[in-house]
Amino acid sequence: MSELAVRARKLDGADELAALRDRFVLDEAVYLDGNSLGALPGHVPDRVADVIRRQWGELRIRSWEESGWWTAPERIGDRIAPLVGAAPGQIVVGDSTSVNVFKALVAAVRMADGDRDEILVDATTFPTDGYIAESAARLTGRTLRPVTPAEVPDALGGRTAAVLLNHVDYRTGRLHDLPALTAAIHASGALAVWDLCHSAGALEVGLDEHGVDLAVGCTYKYLNGGPGSPAYLYVREDLQPRFDSPLPGWNSHAEPFGMRPSYAPAPGALRGRVGTPDILSMLALEAALDVWQDVSMSAVRAKSLALTDFFLECVERYVPAGRVECLTPARHQERGSQIALRCDDAGKVMRRLIERGVIGDFRHPDVLRFGFTPLYVTFTDVERAGRVLGETVGG
Amino acid sequence: MSELAVRARKLDGADELAALRDRFVLDEAVYLDGNSLGALPGHVPDRVADVIRRQWGELRIRSWEESGWWTAPERIGDRIAPLVGAAPGQIVVGDSTSVNVFKALVAAVRMADGDRDEILVDATTFPTDGYIAESAARLTGRTLRPVTPAEVPDALGGRTAAVLLNHVDYRTGRLHDLPALTAAIHASGALAVWDLCHSAGALEVGLDEHGVDLAVGCTYKYLNGGPGSPAYLYVREDLQPRFDSPLPGWNSHAEPFGMRPSYAPAPGALRGRVGTPDILSMLALEAALDVWQDVSMSAVRAKSLALTDFFLECVERYVPAGRVECLTPARHQERGSQIALRCDDAGKVMRRLIERGVIGDFRHPDVLRFGFTPLYVTFTDVERAGRVLGETVGG
Repeated sequence: MSELAVRARKLDGADELAALRDRFVLDEAVYLDGNSLGALPGHVPDRVADVIRRQWGELRIRSWEESGWWTAPERIGDRIAPLVGAAPGQIVVGDSTSVNVFKALVAAVRMADGDRDEILVDATTFPTDGYIAESAARLTGRTLRPVTPAEVPDALGGRTAAVLLNHVDYRTGRLHDLPALTAAIHASGALAVWDLCHSAGALEVGLDEHGVDLAVGCTYKYLNGGPGSPAYLYVREDLQPRFDSPLPGWNSHAEPFGMRPSYAPAPGALRGRVGTPDILSMLALEAALDVWQDVSMSAVRAKSLALTDFFLECVERYVPAGRVECLTPARHQERGSQIALRCDDAGKVMRRLIERGVIGDFRHPDVLRFGFTPLYVTFTDVERAGRVLGETVGG
Repeated sequence: MSELAVRARKLDGADELAALRDRFVLDEAVYLDGNSLGALPGHVPDRVADVIRRQWGELRIRSWEESGWWTAPERIGDRIAPLVGAAPGQIVVGDSTSVNVFKALVAAVRMADGDRDEILVDATTFPTDGYIAESAARLTGRTLRPVTPAEVPDALGGRTAAVLLNHVDYRTGRLHDLPALTAAIHASGALAVWDLCHSAGALEVGLDEHGVDLAVGCTYKYLNGGPGSPAYLYVREDLQPRFDSPLPGWNSHAEPFGMRPSYAPAPGALRGRVGTPDILSMLALEAALDVWQDVSMSAVRAKSLALTDFFLECVERYVPAGRVECLTPARHQERGSQIALRCDDAGKVMRRLIERGVIGDFRHPDVLRFGFTPLYVTFTDVERAGRVLGETVGG
């Protein structure tokens, strides 16, 4: 057994989160794609079966009240809240991330001073954020200006209405400085909208602590909610009375069953709701969140960094020099929970890795992406991934 | 046995759709709320269990390709298409009805001549359509004018950009004249957007035949897709190249995995997609649609009218004169698949009906609503509902 394999075994033995792995359905493979689709928590199938067979099949329409369907978006929002550093009453679950980016950005522009005519958007963000920001700008008569996160401080000014940023870059795994950027945005008088897709569930976000205005995120990566599980929207409590949604569906009405012809928004985070929630996907997510009970996000973050550090060490040891180039920052404060390696023939290399049971993903044109979910990835997994990668690209 | 009960038995014996009832999970109750939440098709739980345990739990990320997750929105759209009289390639499934109303109405306004500055909306429609229309008007700089469907022909003119109408009124069950209204809208040079929530799956819609421009609908009523199952969007084929979505998420990009910084819409109905689809809810819907295999919508419509005719006859016979007033039109061409009865103390009456196993719903302030799903409601159900209603309000 190699020295690294021995180290891996020791690290696993000392891992305080190790027992959580048993909560998930996993197999022989090393699953390093939880930053794309989280693994299935083992208790979820039975919970969803109950939702379908009993709540839908037997109670039917009564479940909107008796099974708590109607209040699921805000109830599940309150389950996500502590994971992103938010007090209750500020998050609702529902719709896709794209749709929530639209709500958040249009609402942010409407909360800004009317003479601020520019929206800044992270030029390196996951593309959908940029497309939706373009639409939000067009519909609100603002100009969209793509800048890198590093350029944001200089780009801010009296024209800036709102800034949409990604907390962790989906491609490189770079973690942006949410506290400092939010402070800079506020100093310029603009609103900060953060996309947490690649950070929530992997590290401490601190939404309330850092005064973030609005945030969105998906729930199918580190939160393991299932394929396409609904996204969420955070609206800071003091901004809620001014949250003016571009999608004022009946679920966000102050009196949804009053069937009033004119719209009057509900108080609080509820006004981020739109239409009828997709109950099956939503209650699968609710069940999946059970694994977070008593899990400390600081322990998660510590393990995440230990995993990525160890992976980089394994790559250094096993992969021939110059064969891959790490795109993820070395400094902990700039690193999310994934490692991105630039590699010639990355598409072919990833196919061979997958054949050998190391599941990462390939991002066009030349990036190998490996996600490290602290709840179920072991150091032994990491050593194997590094070793197989070395064997695949080397020799 | 009363004469009506004998008639009910005979009608059930002659019902060519009778065997379909066995495809659903039903109990002792008479379920007349399928126009709110359709009953569970019996095979759905096992299908969803496979999606969760095998597709998510075992194949995980590979299921986006291997289990057909990625193409589900358009594949399931093509399953709905024949039910609403549409050729393939014009419907995508995803998001809520409210979100789809937004996409359809903003896109319709953008397809209309730029100097047309007014949107007409059905003043009697389900409220969310009106709220979303108000938002679409505000964001596109148009004026919103609520009118009743009967007033639409006179209200149309050179200023009209688009008209949003409901095919069947959710409250009264009145069926509006889609062919004539669509023709009138077109004659004025405007676009017609129809909401099919209360008609799809209960009667023939004929989207292609009548030249409807855009349409939306939910799938959890007569299509039995499950609580909050995703809605759909129809864009007529020849309009698709001009469909300019206000929600251009990455799923509607011409090259979604190219991760391009700038947006380029996919061809066809795909450009109605937005973000990552909610796979669990969506594939439950796909399974639910299996019951429509070989079902003729004209047979469904014929049974629907026979059921509502028979219910009105039972009400006439069993309910003391003047105790309820029917709000649903008597003429077949003006009737959807529900009967709405105005009744004093409607809330209390509905609670008592439900206690006695007749499940309808109450709409504020004074309406008893009974939906008749032709796939599983029997004439015996109808006779019992009428009899219990008579006993509840009479005497």
